Amino acid sequence: MKVLTIVTHPRTDSLTFSVASRLVKGLEDAGHKTEVLDLYRSGFDPVLWEADEPDWSADVQHFSPEVEKEMTRIAEHDALAFVFPLWWWSMPAMLKGYIDRVFNYGFAYGPNKLQHEHVLWLSLAGAPVERFTKRHYDDMMTHYFNVGLADYVGIKSSKFELFYQTIHPTQEHIEDLLTQAYKLGLNYPKA
Amino acid sequence: MKVLTIVTHPRTDSLTFSVASRLVKGLEDAGHKTEVLDLYRSGFDPVLWEADEPDWSADVQHFSPEVEKEMTRIAEHDALAFVFPLWWWSMPAMLKGYIDRVFNYGFAYGPNKLQHEHVLWLSLAGAPVERFTKRHYDDMMTHYFNVGLADYVGIKSSKFELFYQTIHPTQEHIEDLLTQAYKLGLNYPKA
Repeated sequence: MKVLTIVTHPRTDSLTFSVASRLVKGLEDAGHKTEVLDLYRSGFDPVLWEADEPDWSADVQHFSPEVEKEMTRIAEHDALAFVFPLWWWSMPAMLKGYIDRVFNYGFAYGPNKLQHEHVLWLSLAGAPVERFTKRHYDDMMTHYFNVGLADYVGIKSSKFELFYQTIHPTQEHIEDLLTQAYKLGLNYPKA
Repeated sequence: MKVLTIVTHPRTDSLTFSVASRLVKGLEDAGHKTEVLDLYRSGFDPVLWEADEPDWSADVQHFSPEVEKEMTRIAEHDALAFVFPLWWWSMPAMLKGYIDRVFNYGFAYGPNKLQHEHVLWLSLAGAPVERFTKRHYDDMMTHYFNVGLADYVGIKSSKFELFYQTIHPTQEHIEDLLTQAYKLGLNYPKA
């Protein structure tokens, strides 16, 4: 498959980027082709202005060139993988803006939806797992990404995977996470 | 009380701004002082870069001037009100970036938290209520805003209010929503 891997983090020397790199290695070793989109350094602007507001009454939608380019990039791939840090139990604004602007009416939902075989949401959380289960944040986020986003845009196969305790991790924990990331790529989309 | 009203929408002629305006009128008629922050036109950049990444090891945090300015603005108020369109069952990227960058460690969570008496999240949704209850999006979002955000930053009194069916609304529905917004201001923070 052709897998578009979208990575979001202010620093390329972050654990997020290391994890993304191992995921991509796994994908390649499994024979997939993958393009990596580094949102922060791509120049993408996450702020939706009027030019990209949905025109609910139009049969054919028109968007800004920057957004049309990203819609084309998505359409050229069979599957998607997002790698990002979890900020406030959700995506960084940069990635949220990518969804806001690119997952458009008539393209990703409504009369036309996405045709991708699978989407992986791989997110790195600072806190340990207990902090999430205690207040049901894990259930809340799984529902958000698998149902609110993936199912809504027509992708029936979706996996939300959370890597916990990524602030000041031990070297052993880092190695464990990188191995997990590699396996997620190697077994994509099954793992 | 001094209420900071933060409005997020690409257009000032939007229903979101009309609703915010009526909310503010209600607040003023109740004797509150309110400052309106128009995020889109304030020049705020929602993208968090390294300068605003939390330094978990430092006792005193330092952030970029733009962010320090917004932290000061928040601290000068007793209560908060956010008015925004619901995009993908959540905040627009612009508002998410405001949370990402301004609700900082040591200021809004961790060793120090916010001291506000109340926060109102007033969001305008395009779809009718049935679309939300069917997939429990309303529960998911109420938990997200009241617990994941408000409680996490130390604001015990939080209300998430959703205005439904705001795409192509009838004039009667618009009037009803504006009246509701006015009452939310007039009875703030009780309504």
